[in-house]
Amino acid sequence: MTFHDPPRLPRGFRTASRNCGLKPSGKDLAVFVSDVDASAAAVFTRNHFPGAPVLLGREIIRRGVLRAIVVNSKVSNVATGARGVEDARRMAAAAASALGTSPERVLVASTGVIGLPLPIEKNERGLSGIAADLGDDPLVGAEGMMTTDTRPKALSLTVGDVIITWVAKGAGMIEPNMATMLVYIMTDAAIAAPELERHLRDAVDVSFNMLSVDSDTSTSDTCAILANGFAGRVDADAFRRALTMGCLRMTEILARDAEGATKLLRATVRGAKDAGEARRIAKSLVNSPLVKTMVHGADPNVGRVLMAVGKCFECTVRPETTDAWINGQKVVQGGQRTAFDEGTVRAALATDTADIVVSLGIGDAEATAFGCDLSAGYIAENAAYYSS
Amino acid sequence: MTFHDPPRLPRGFRTASRNCGLKPSGKDLAVFVSDVDASAAAVFTRNHFPGAPVLLGREIIRRGVLRAIVVNSKVSNVATGARGVEDARRMAAAAASALGTSPERVLVASTGVIGLPLPIEKNERGLSGIAADLGDDPLVGAEGMMTTDTRPKALSLTVGDVIITWVAKGAGMIEPNMATMLVYIMTDAAIAAPELERHLRDAVDVSFNMLSVDSDTSTSDTCAILANGFAGRVDADAFRRALTMGCLRMTEILARDAEGATKLLRATVRGAKDAGEARRIAKSLVNSPLVKTMVHGADPNVGRVLMAVGKCFECTVRPETTDAWINGQKVVQGGQRTAFDEGTVRAALATDTADIVVSLGIGDAEATAFGCDLSAGYIAENAAYYSS
Repeated sequence: MTFHDPPRLPRGFRTASRNCGLKPSGKDLAVFVSDVDASAAAVFTRNHFPGAPVLLGREIIRRGVLRAIVVNSKVSNVATGARGVEDARRMAAAAASALGTSPERVLVASTGVIGLPLPIEKNERGLSGIAADLGDDPLVGAEGMMTTDTRPKALSLTVGDVIITWVAKGAGMIEPNMATMLVYIMTDAAIAAPELERHLRDAVDVSFNMLSVDSDTSTSDTCAILANGFAGRVDADAFRRALTMGCLRMTEILARDAEGATKLLRATVRGAKDAGEARRIAKSLVNSPLVKTMVHGADPNVGRVLMAVGKCFECTVRPETTDAWINGQKVVQGGQRTAFDEGTVRAALATDTADIVVSLGIGDAEATAFGCDLSAGYIAENAAYYSS
Repeated sequence: MTFHDPPRLPRGFRTASRNCGLKPSGKDLAVFVSDVDASAAAVFTRNHFPGAPVLLGREIIRRGVLRAIVVNSKVSNVATGARGVEDARRMAAAAASALGTSPERVLVASTGVIGLPLPIEKNERGLSGIAADLGDDPLVGAEGMMTTDTRPKALSLTVGDVIITWVAKGAGMIEPNMATMLVYIMTDAAIAAPELERHLRDAVDVSFNMLSVDSDTSTSDTCAILANGFAGRVDADAFRRALTMGCLRMTEILARDAEGATKLLRATVRGAKDAGEARRIAKSLVNSPLVKTMVHGADPNVGRVLMAVGKCFECTVRPETTDAWINGQKVVQGGQRTAFDEGTVRAALATDTADIVVSLGIGDAEATAFGCDLSAGYIAENAAYYSS
């Protein structure tokens, strides 16, 4: 398994992006296309107010076949009622027409402000003739999906004869739950849709679903995978491992580029009663504003780690068997703060990654959650997101 | 029912505070004393790592009788093991000796940094002779409990012949659950301990338990009530109403003075399936970092209200019956953004209170949650709390 630098697309996939006038400048429209029909699977947000593209996408993905994905940024087409669904259908039709396929082979996504209608004519004009722009750099497509992301996100790897490529966007309103922000995965492996869906759910479960930037769950979250078969069959176990590894790496890329983030925050909980409790406590750590600000300030205020574990009321926690480490320094032993050297912990936290490990001493379950620090940058970005 | 300005103590209660050297300057030690044994009830944090004073307090309160409360600020005596419990007992003994009562009549509390041992000799020296300082201004006692609070918090009211007085501290690590930050309530009503506890739990449930500054639950939360009977019996319903009203007012005082807060955020959910769902959704609104930053920036990004409602996966929500208002302006109708005037909503948000009302159109249950906006001040305060 080898990661590529720079990332590239699998055989038989191409992408393009354009400015269609939703943003004053900068790409705001992207397409990802397979040369042939690809097996496909997707998971979507569990938010009760899913965007119109999510409603349409759930319908489209049932067939397990896709040729293209079309995405616009800046306006999310969420909370827009019947008109929103009609606009999503028009976007699929325009993409199908421009790319020579049928609308039921196109997955649509929109990301950006919630509640404003999509200026659909701009999308339609932007898609017209876009086939002429198609190329093989995944970062070009990723650029058209960006909202508050500071850079386009793509990565790819080779496993056996197969290439798997991820493109993603997401920097805020991120606590996916059974789904994720916008992540598209393309591969030239030959895998049937039902198997693809199982692999996707398993990989998403330990990666994107364990990421939280701000505990807020987007109304547009979508993670889709397309497999066009150009490279033939692949060993299922090797593919699963590669898919999970890439999803984990993309999760960390998203966390590092989260709104206002200056560090990756990784919380591993060991010795939990069961996987559900391990996940809940790990999420509590990466979601705690007081842990996040402690990490931001490299402040060795380690009692907050216990606070964030202890507030999981419904989980089994025993102070006397609880130990904790921050970047390898043992800071808690048996529920009590150790006599650690403050300067050492401060220095360990003054790096670009904070690894918090908590051992509960209850059972055998383990989970890792991903997040970031909380800085004044998050406030500045979100106190005027709509108006800026 | 009349609130007093300035607040005063009920008959037979006195208070004092001192600097005992935990803080460089400023009061860091307070006592509240009844002239006679008082009926008492208390609720404590549900955090799995309760502080030593909470462990001791749970034992003490079983008798339903208190004469005094002693509190220090700056160091919380949490995650301090057997030594911590021993220190809490020494603090009770020193207070009992100084105030002429026995240790099992004293409720102890410590609030501040988690994980450091209490410099108990300082507390003991500070308590020596404190009876000479006792006076009748509740704000003087409240001053000794302050950590990041910008001002001491006390209020009082008269109901019938009875006075009820609240003193409180709390500005961060606040999402009480079945308990609260530090709140002490004193009254000269004659009420037996079991009845007092029922009244307390009911009042706390709709007030302090519906407050969230940052979704983080303190390890020291305690809310206690003392009734010394000096004013005789009081009508039970009138007392309950007065107790609840004062708890609600103190909840709003705490929210407004939360770390970095510039506004009170109040979220009311109506038409929910049941009280549990109404409470959960109301809490989701006041806890959402994106709603909190929207309120902070007076940015009419109202789609975030739907996002925060919709991420309560386990609750019954139907987009088509969901309406929402911000400070009286209807911003959502049937799950869709209305064509509201942005300038009007912006102006409505640019006040010191943001009232978000969501009507779910499912059932009859209602709940209100209390919180505050999220500002750069919260980050600044918490990225170096330990070190500063």
